Amino acid sequence: MAKLNLVAEPGSYEIRMTREFDAPREQVFKAMTDPALVPRWWGPSSVSTVVDRMEVKPGGMWRYVQREQDGTEYGFHGVYHAVEALERLVFTFEFEGMPGHVLLETVTFEEHSGKTRVIDSSVFQSVADRDGMLRAGMESGASESWERLEALLPEIQL
Amino acid sequence: MAKLNLVAEPGSYEIRMTREFDAPREQVFKAMTDPALVPRWWGPSSVSTVVDRMEVKPGGMWRYVQREQDGTEYGFHGVYHAVEALERLVFTFEFEGMPGHVLLETVTFEEHSGKTRVIDSSVFQSVADRDGMLRAGMESGASESWERLEALLPEIQL
Repeated sequence: MAKLNLVAEPGSYEIRMTREFDAPREQVFKAMTDPALVPRWWGPSSVSTVVDRMEVKPGGMWRYVQREQDGTEYGFHGVYHAVEALERLVFTFEFEGMPGHVLLETVTFEEHSGKTRVIDSSVFQSVADRDGMLRAGMESGASESWERLEALLPEIQL
Repeated sequence: MAKLNLVAEPGSYEIRMTREFDAPREQVFKAMTDPALVPRWWGPSSVSTVVDRMEVKPGGMWRYVQREQDGTEYGFHGVYHAVEALERLVFTFEFEGMPGHVLLETVTFEEHSGKTRVIDSSVFQSVADRDGMLRAGMESGASESWERLEALLPEIQL
């Protein structure tokens, strides 16, 4: 079974996550860019995710809200800087609980023999910010999200 | 005379520039956030800079156009993520000649004894992108911009 690989070298500003998905990249790219699909895989399955805004084009805003079972809400937002179909997404990411702490994320899609390798690079404003994100559980969170994404892929109609 | 200090450690994603200005930070912050003032210091004095958009608030877009004497135009744009008056600005920066290559910039203003230290940290998507910006002349460009900014400060009314 494919697993998330996370690399965060000591002292670096980057977290690089890689995972292979058993589907062509049309499906993987669509899962990441279709507002109707994002709530089905983004974040842990114990919370519900609502897409408040998602304008998938350069300069377009996105905003997701996670609602826990007790009603607590957490907002996340950012701006798309590049949307190259099937190839690459570049966007910023900000957790609204820590305003002004921003990361810049570049997601690259590579297809080989019908499988898609996703390389997700996040660069932070400082090593401290990056290490804080790791301590906050980024690896387990991303791992669960991407397992949900993998499970969703067979249902995605192109 | 105050000089620009630029630090770019080998293999890092960051460029950190620091300079002291001989004015309180109200003036320095205003020079960086007032659309009427930006064309007077941003970029080299040999080109003219036009502020196309500049919405200085979280989520607000900015776009500047530099026009060379032969009429050639270069566009730059980004989005503000944090605007903390007199303290800090966080925004993205993209040169339109290299779409999808984005940097995340954090500018911090510290005042001591009537002088303002500006710390400008840029993080890039890769070491290659960062090194490309250095080769493109970031240090001399920033140095000239900030000298123009210093010269402008005495004229700034609060």
